[in-house]
Amino acid sequence: MAESRIFTAALVVIGDEILSGRTHDKNIAQVATWLQVQGIRLKEVRVVADDPDAIGEAINELRARNDYLFTTGGIGPTHDDITVDAISAALGVGVVVHPDARAILEAYYTTRGGLTDARLRMARVPEGADLIPNRYTGAPGIRFGNLFIMAGVPSITAGMLDALTGELEGGAPLLSETVGCWVGESEVADLLRATEKAHANCQIGSYPFWKEGKTGANFVIRSTDAEELADCTRALVAGLADGGRAAVPGGI
Amino acid sequence: MAESRIFTAALVVIGDEILSGRTHDKNIAQVATWLQVQGIRLKEVRVVADDPDAIGEAINELRARNDYLFTTGGIGPTHDDITVDAISAALGVGVVVHPDARAILEAYYTTRGGLTDARLRMARVPEGADLIPNRYTGAPGIRFGNLFIMAGVPSITAGMLDALTGELEGGAPLLSETVGCWVGESEVADLLRATEKAHANCQIGSYPFWKEGKTGANFVIRSTDAEELADCTRALVAGLADGGRAAVPGGI
Repeated sequence: MAESRIFTAALVVIGDEILSGRTHDKNIAQVATWLQVQGIRLKEVRVVADDPDAIGEAINELRARNDYLFTTGGIGPTHDDITVDAISAALGVGVVVHPDARAILEAYYTTRGGLTDARLRMARVPEGADLIPNRYTGAPGIRFGNLFIMAGVPSITAGMLDALTGELEGGAPLLSETVGCWVGESEVADLLRATEKAHANCQIGSYPFWKEGKTGANFVIRSTDAEELADCTRALVAGLADGGRAAVPGGI
Repeated sequence: MAESRIFTAALVVIGDEILSGRTHDKNIAQVATWLQVQGIRLKEVRVVADDPDAIGEAINELRARNDYLFTTGGIGPTHDDITVDAISAALGVGVVVHPDARAILEAYYTTRGGLTDARLRMARVPEGADLIPNRYTGAPGIRFGNLFIMAGVPSITAGMLDALTGELEGGAPLLSETVGCWVGESEVADLLRATEKAHANCQIGSYPFWKEGKTGANFVIRSTDAEELADCTRALVAGLADGGRAAVPGGI
């Protein structure tokens, strides 16, 4: 297989509520899973506070070294929603009201008390940005070049990701196979290492667990090459069988 | 109240399985909640891949600007457990087998097939490190100055945090009150902003939700000063009542 370029992304999760432990983040897993399907590798996630400097630093560092950068959180109507201001400052551009976002909000609030100043905050974008449409909830996200600014509420984030599905250039998706086994991972550590080493384009991850009073592990084999992935998986299953251990296809 | 020093911490979550979306992280919320109780402010979280350079960069950046740094993940017996090596390299120290960790593992594996080379990997620490005892699972964590290296499996991490409870110097814990209301947050955005502004040492976070077909929000007031927190909470409840809105103490 020809070597294909790897596309990378980073995610910045913005919100005091995650850092205080009050809210359990769901967007890391949601964005990570979605990126896998797009053939884009998630390289790093940062969770930062509702603090303009912390947001700006994360944005500029991660933008520079990834093909794509996503953010979640802080784009609502209240005073603690500072993401657009912080990102605009970091980008060195002004904040403007996007006419299409204003129109969407005007239509939505016609029967809901009208477009107040607070609600109009949700139409503010970094100057030069486009909107990410959202056919589920209406609430648009914001796109500025390779930067995608999304909501913090996971169901709203989902609608924004839906609009971006298939829109971003990605590379060969990272494929994976999972093999489970009722074994302590330390008992097969040598087999795992040797199997990975014998298959240059595959990585094997080992994830132990305890269930029903028994020790087990799932082994996840990852590769961008379907044939090598299948070879490596077969080799691991055979190696486990040689040691008298039954592999469970698909994992436990 | 006298101004007290604020103690800060950062967390580095190490693991390809989080970045691929395969595993939903539980340690961010677990560590965040635990730190709140210790009076230590979680400032930033980074999720990085099983990659020595990525781990090293995160460790050195976050160590330098926080009182404490925690890591989770990558300290098991298999080839993909590279945390100790990556951190030792970042710290500029060697890797040694800790005699107490070796003794713990020897005792544990006496009736479980003996201490193999793979299992002995779990006794390796950065030179000069101490162990974090673990009365629940036996598996110790590693302490090196202000750096705490913990397991990725949340139940094992919990045992390590338990051993550290009350051991780290913290400041005044950040207190919080939650007030819920069946209201769209944009309708009370001005009230929230004005109430926060009138109470200098308080922050108000606004967290909208949709439940049972209705719009609501929880407002979380945070302060290190119990009296100001109570004042601010009372003011917010009164402000909501002035607008004909009933506050739900403790949140919805």
